Amino acid sequence: MSLARDEPHDMAHEFTHIRTVEFAETDMAGIVHFSNFFRYMEATEHAFFASLGLDLHTEADGRVQGFVRVHASCDYLAPATNRDRIAIHLTVIEKREKSLRYRCEFRLEGDAAVIARGEMQVVHVGKSNGDERMRACNMPAETQRLIEVAPEPRT
Amino acid sequence: MSLARDEPHDMAHEFTHIRTVEFAETDMAGIVHFSNFFRYMEATEHAFFASLGLDLHTEADGRVQGFVRVHASCDYLAPATNRDRIAIHLTVIEKREKSLRYRCEFRLEGDAAVIARGEMQVVHVGKSNGDERMRACNMPAETQRLIEVAPEPRT
Amino acid sequence: MSLARDEPHDMAHEFTHIRTVEFAETDMAGIVHFSNFFRYMEATEHAFFASLGLDLHTEADGRVQGFVRVHASCDYLAPATNRDRIAIHLTVIEKREKSLRYRCEFRLEGDAAVIARGEMQVVHVGKSNGDERMRACNMPAETQRLIEVAPEPRT
Amino acid sequence: MSLARDEPHDMAHEFTHIRTVEFAETDMAGIVHFSNFFRYMEATEHAFFASLGLDLHTEADGRVQGFVRVHASCDYLAPATNRDRIAIHLTVIEKREKSLRYRCEFRLEGDAAVIARGEMQVVHVGKSNGDERMRACNMPAETQRLIEVAPEPRT
Repeated sequence: MSLARDEPHDMAHEFTHIRTVEFAETDMAGIVHFSNFFRYMEATEHAFFASLGLDLHTEADGRVQGFVRVHASCDYLAPATNRDRIAIHLTVIEKREKSLRYRCEFRLEGDAAVIARGEMQVVHVGKSNGDERMRACNMPAETQRLIEVAPEPRT
Repeated sequence: MSLARDEPHDMAHEFTHIRTVEFAETDMAGIVHFSNFFRYMEATEHAFFASLGLDLHTEADGRVQGFVRVHASCDYLAPATNRDRIAIHLTVIEKREKSLRYRCEFRLEGDAAVIARGEMQVVHVGKSNGDERMRACNMPAETQRLIEVAPEPRT
Repeated sequence: MSLARDEPHDMAHEFTHIRTVEFAETDMAGIVHFSNFFRYMEATEHAFFASLGLDLHTEADGRVQGFVRVHASCDYLAPATNRDRIAIHLTVIEKREKSLRYRCEFRLEGDAAVIARGEMQVVHVGKSNGDERMRACNMPAETQRLIEVAPEPRT
Repeated sequence: MSLARDEPHDMAHEFTHIRTVEFAETDMAGIVHFSNFFRYMEATEHAFFASLGLDLHTEADGRVQGFVRVHASCDYLAPATNRDRIAIHLTVIEKREKSLRYRCEFRLEGDAAVIARGEMQVVHVGKSNGDERMRACNMPAETQRLIEVAPEPRT
């Protein structure tokens, strides 16, 4: 990427991902299985990275890097069901050299009511040829530069 | 069930469920996908209920009852991978008339180290013929009687 | 719907659904888990129905109707992985009063090579209030009218 | 393993895996989602290998080996639902140097009726350090020795 440092509008702290609930994501209670909200959050994170030209997982010169989840949580306020269009709004609420924390709000598209609210914390890890296992390490410079923390909401 | 009220040993506040990680539960990072820990928690809850002769979801005389999740969270300390045997230890940490709260600790079988720690809160809901939708309602008497809250851990 | 019978262009025998592979759909071999191709086929079928203003599952006046799978198969020629854009081309290869049969060809978007080829046969079933269980029954007239069988490919 | 070649009873051509359907495996039609039968087949295959002291996927001296699916199919005769105990009976119906073909019959435990019948063909692949990608190659000698083809059923 060739973005110059003086293009602050290329930095991002929020993103909205929209998807249609699929039949296989429902359970016998007739609603989206609660575990799928975590998959939706991760898909939103990946789409957010892709929107910035970034990839969460990279492999180059024998070095593997990526993000692992260290925390995930979700509060469920109302159900979603088959064919519903869900808008997932991700906000970056914390950025450190080795980690990010997101908040996700789920709504039915075009509806103001939040149906679920989740959080995820991810840690950047890497491993070079010869290393036994992944270790926490600084995020790539480009990732650190392009992703920023959302300003505090005004009350 | 024919358990008498004077059999307190039939009451339960904890349960351990053991399972083998399946290939389909891993992701391209080579470990169990984080969303599956939520499925493991739910499977443990269902096995806990089954161990007491209870079912989470019942349907009788046109009345449907069950539990919905209102909160789920998990902290990930170490990964698990294909063919690992995982022991999930569930503890009931709160019981109200309409809800239960669990804590789950994940370990590799035979190993003392906790690899993940989660919580779930479930609310009992029901719907009779003619009702538009599920509403929170008291848990069945048998469920209320057989499930108890774990004593505070001594420090 | 108000489509007139003399609008044959509203009938359809094929459809293409495009999706991005998600991280949770990969396995530790680094590729899309083979079982997900069946979910992709079903998602394509639902999108095909939706494109015609149809729903596979309906509930009205105490009558539940839908389609059940009686056969599914897939041949895998090449793998797909995280973030790949997959184009799934569905063709209706058989239509009877109570059943449909589809063929699906999977390609990486913009690439001519087929990476997988599958088939599914679905049977229409229904149940009215008081019925014990679902029984095979004719598809709704609108479904029968709008979905047609693909012409034989010229050789 | 120290099995001698003159212990033909250690060779195997069939295996039964039993599992309890989990809530997350059901869909809004109230039954096990059809795609999960493919996961059940794979889980049975892995349990079959484990029963022989074998692993489908190995990594040693920079060489990665495993099996990829090239074909999977299933016919669905009757549904299964939450908490059902399913017995999956796997039979090896073809063995070549680089591939295996299985048949799986699904029954509710203790019931003679087959509820589903599937097939899978897997090809053994491997990759050494420096190789660009996995290539079909002979199965390990131990795998070839311990797994045999089922005799033709008498009619």
